[in-house]
Amino acid sequence: MHQRSAHRSLLVVGSVAYDDIDGPFGLHKNLLGGSASFIARAAAYFTNKVAIVGVVGEDFEQKYLDELTAQHVDVSGVERAKGETFHWVGKYAPDLATRETIDTRLGVFGTFQPKIRDAHKDAQLVLLGNIDPPLQLDVLNQVRAPALVAMDTMNLWIDIKRKDLLAVIARVHTIMLNDEEARQLAEEHNLRRAAAKILKMGPTSVIIKRGDAGALLFHGGGAFAAPAMPLADVKDPTGAGDSFAGGLMGYLAYAGDLSPSTIRTAMIMGSVMGSFAVEQFSVDGLRGLTTQRIQQRFDELSELVRFDRAAL
Amino acid sequence: MHQRSAHRSLLVVGSVAYDDIDGPFGLHKNLLGGSASFIARAAAYFTNKVAIVGVVGEDFEQKYLDELTAQHVDVSGVERAKGETFHWVGKYAPDLATRETIDTRLGVFGTFQPKIRDAHKDAQLVLLGNIDPPLQLDVLNQVRAPALVAMDTMNLWIDIKRKDLLAVIARVHTIMLNDEEARQLAEEHNLRRAAAKILKMGPTSVIIKRGDAGALLFHGGGAFAAPAMPLADVKDPTGAGDSFAGGLMGYLAYAGDLSPSTIRTAMIMGSVMGSFAVEQFSVDGLRGLTTQRIQQRFDELSELVRFDRAAL
Repeated sequence: MHQRSAHRSLLVVGSVAYDDIDGPFGLHKNLLGGSASFIARAAAYFTNKVAIVGVVGEDFEQKYLDELTAQHVDVSGVERAKGETFHWVGKYAPDLATRETIDTRLGVFGTFQPKIRDAHKDAQLVLLGNIDPPLQLDVLNQVRAPALVAMDTMNLWIDIKRKDLLAVIARVHTIMLNDEEARQLAEEHNLRRAAAKILKMGPTSVIIKRGDAGALLFHGGGAFAAPAMPLADVKDPTGAGDSFAGGLMGYLAYAGDLSPSTIRTAMIMGSVMGSFAVEQFSVDGLRGLTTQRIQQRFDELSELVRFDRAAL
Repeated sequence: MHQRSAHRSLLVVGSVAYDDIDGPFGLHKNLLGGSASFIARAAAYFTNKVAIVGVVGEDFEQKYLDELTAQHVDVSGVERAKGETFHWVGKYAPDLATRETIDTRLGVFGTFQPKIRDAHKDAQLVLLGNIDPPLQLDVLNQVRAPALVAMDTMNLWIDIKRKDLLAVIARVHTIMLNDEEARQLAEEHNLRRAAAKILKMGPTSVIIKRGDAGALLFHGGGAFAAPAMPLADVKDPTGAGDSFAGGLMGYLAYAGDLSPSTIRTAMIMGSVMGSFAVEQFSVDGLRGLTTQRIQQRFDELSELVRFDRAAL
């Protein structure tokens, strides 16, 4: 991407993890994972003003951080702590449509307290990846006046930390979650009604991620549906939602404005990055992309939904 | 709609039925149902050249046929036979996402042999609604040289009449089915691969209906994704797919051409008519619509997926 001074800074807080993933392609151990790993890699294609905050253990391979540095991601906010890196073990159904968590070893994430460096406190865009809601709140209390704060969450926190979660939701501009989480949070099956209930909790925008059915944005200006690319080869859906968030927020940082039209284009960029992510294991699908390939898939998505007006 | 001489004729073969539907809104008995009932009502908004072929029993209320006649649908191909009208009993889950068949009473449909009248044999567009594959084949053997033959089917026929079904599929241009049926027919979970396998069975186009996730078209020219309108009020999903098919085929008849661009617009018109259908029970959502309301919902769908090109 060409670099413009208008780029806004993006601060990403999230997990950096190792994943063991079982499923139709066998068991893959110690894959690089975690929300921040996907988000930062996806966002870095759009701007060189991405910084991440997180924690890794003594066992975490330095090369993964070096790789981010090479992508101009500021990793100075990634703390290395005594203990093991956060480790997630999951198993996908043969059709990759559902998964279950087999094990979660918090490791150094169990005692993590995000400390935002001075240089990061003025971030213009903040993305709170899917972590414990009190930690998300902690970060919000440390940043100054971001133009946009977006958050992700998951069923676990809706189940066991609803009160803390609602406190975070009340303070963000945008919440992203998947369809089942939206239904669970709103206690309402219909997605349009669920979105309306979530908007009443505070955010001005709700983004509902629906996997291969795309993503829906609901906000004051109405609704927008971003398509998902129908892919013939899906290897690993892990990180799809985070890659979507990274593409979206990275594009917003790049574009330098938050107009409804820019947000729509950013949703499509999210869908583009999510589609690359699921084609490979771990963050492999986000490696080695070019502006040309990203633009090409964007154009494929445009073509996928293009139609002429009917004249009745 | 303004009537043009270029309209093509559309012949619809399908069921005319009574439905008993249970679910979150209680039990509704003896609702007008059947694939042809939805298809004809949806298509009739676009052209006055719709004819239906089917069978009803002695118990079938004449007013439903008169209603079609008032919509300029030719019902001369609907036979009235001794016995009871086809009756389907279904129950929806509280969230309307899934349903089960409680009972199917074939009645006069059990011995139905579609006889295509001379006036209908030259139909330019033929839609084989979801009925027993040998009956679909019977119809195909009677029509002359339609420009487009489309078919629908269901899991039951894939299960118990695969061979007959494959014989029909080999002879149609377009097959429409829902995502689960596509997976079952192709024995492949991935929808893009499933579509590719189904294309090898003969049709030039596969349309995969995904309910509130929209519909996908796969053909030689690539893929097209038609969005579904995110609706706040869904009462009864019965007939959504048939209304989609009716809107699509009705618009094709109206437009008078089968270009890729017209087919895309027709898919959107299918989505429009499906969205009206699910807002009410039975065919109520398809009653009393105006060109203006149809155009308005079409425009809402256009707005739902509109986005600007990214300049990276």
